[in-house]
Amino acid sequence: MPRYRLLIEYDGAPFVGWQRQANGASVQGALEAAIAAFTGETVVVKGAGRTDAGVHASGQVAHVDLAKAFRADVLRDATNAHLRPAPVAVLDASEVGQEFDARHSAIRRHYRYRIVDRRPPLALLAGRAWRVPKRLDVEAMDAAAKRLLGRHDFTTFRSAACQAASPVKTLDRLDVRREGEEILIETDARSFLHNQVRSMAGSLVEVGLGKWSADELAAALAAADRRGCGPVAPPEGLTLIRVDYPA
Amino acid sequence: MPRYRLLIEYDGAPFVGWQRQANGASVQGALEAAIAAFTGETVVVKGAGRTDAGVHASGQVAHVDLAKAFRADVLRDATNAHLRPAPVAVLDASEVGQEFDARHSAIRRHYRYRIVDRRPPLALLAGRAWRVPKRLDVEAMDAAAKRLLGRHDFTTFRSAACQAASPVKTLDRLDVRREGEEILIETDARSFLHNQVRSMAGSLVEVGLGKWSADELAAALAAADRRGCGPVAPPEGLTLIRVDYPA
Repeated sequence: MPRYRLLIEYDGAPFVGWQRQANGASVQGALEAAIAAFTGETVVVKGAGRTDAGVHASGQVAHVDLAKAFRADVLRDATNAHLRPAPVAVLDASEVGQEFDARHSAIRRHYRYRIVDRRPPLALLAGRAWRVPKRLDVEAMDAAAKRLLGRHDFTTFRSAACQAASPVKTLDRLDVRREGEEILIETDARSFLHNQVRSMAGSLVEVGLGKWSADELAAALAAADRRGCGPVAPPEGLTLIRVDYPA
Repeated sequence: MPRYRLLIEYDGAPFVGWQRQANGASVQGALEAAIAAFTGETVVVKGAGRTDAGVHASGQVAHVDLAKAFRADVLRDATNAHLRPAPVAVLDASEVGQEFDARHSAIRRHYRYRIVDRRPPLALLAGRAWRVPKRLDVEAMDAAAKRLLGRHDFTTFRSAACQAASPVKTLDRLDVRREGEEILIETDARSFLHNQVRSMAGSLVEVGLGKWSADELAAALAAADRRGCGPVAPPEGLTLIRVDYPA
């Protein structure tokens, strides 16, 4: 039974999220239906990151087992043909061994959160970034972000719905910088808690607005209490950029 | 009668173009309706560049005369409020003298054309870039682009519908470069013929595909014959970036 690794891009806007759910179209469901349409098989596509409704990906990774072998480029092109017009694209497909598991083999996830700090609404970046109507202090945000690096109990930045066994995670990168009219928050870790990136982004915006100091952000983390989190940033600013695996 | 200069961003996808037309919603019409809604005046918004259906702008400029004076920031915010949910935003408004004319005072227009050269369809850049399914030689495109610089009869790269008095224009910049997974064509001139940027972009893609040499592109220009133009690039890759005026 050949296993394939897929590299996937999607616009999260029309989906209830990555994961198949009863209440609407999911990215996983769209991929499974597309693959079933030309293989005639009922397949399960397992993703590395279960992105929420509205969250995008430029580099999601998934794996799928097929009963019949396909050339990897044929699998990629036929899946894309059957995905239309859903905003999901398979960028790459390759055959891998049974030991490869998109979720459990992953050693690092990279996310980017986009903000535009301006008063006028977004026309070209609508659905792709969070508009914050006041000017943000990006240097203060970046300095405060460094207080979250390392191994911590991230309960403060964790959704009540989070199913992770432990709230302890190691945050390896959390950088905030201005690029043109956008503010980019770039973060990576082996894994994140549910809503962790959007929770950190929302709290960093409180710092950028001058409402919180870096010390207050650090104290909120140390309190390990969800009530200490700032507003959770909306999903449309978030993109899963890349997932790393052992060489 | 106070005159205001507006800086405007829009997603061109849902519009028949900048210009008011009988057959559908235009950006100009959306702006005029929004301003009319709170001023109670019938207004005419005059733009610097009449972008085609599907073409975007991050820095269109327009002017409008009002019978009653408004604070410029109130005009900006009230127009934006009434534009919703159309993907058009007034980024800035300022009062200017009657000698300012968005179209005739402009001394330079800057356009960007975005291409992604990959086989899989676009999910995140759908409607924002032209997907060309084969790898393009960007160095060859940039070298050939330089042959179009300067003052020429641009009839080859002009729409049959073009209303300009003369096909002679001076092209000041035409750069092609790769940035991440995108190829950006950046061009500026005092003014362009109708479809000129998309016509040049389409012909440069022929060079990037290896179908045309730089000499053939230069010969097509010199022929001053529309039949020598390559396929016109689709509108969704094009954005009006900026319009310059005398200081």
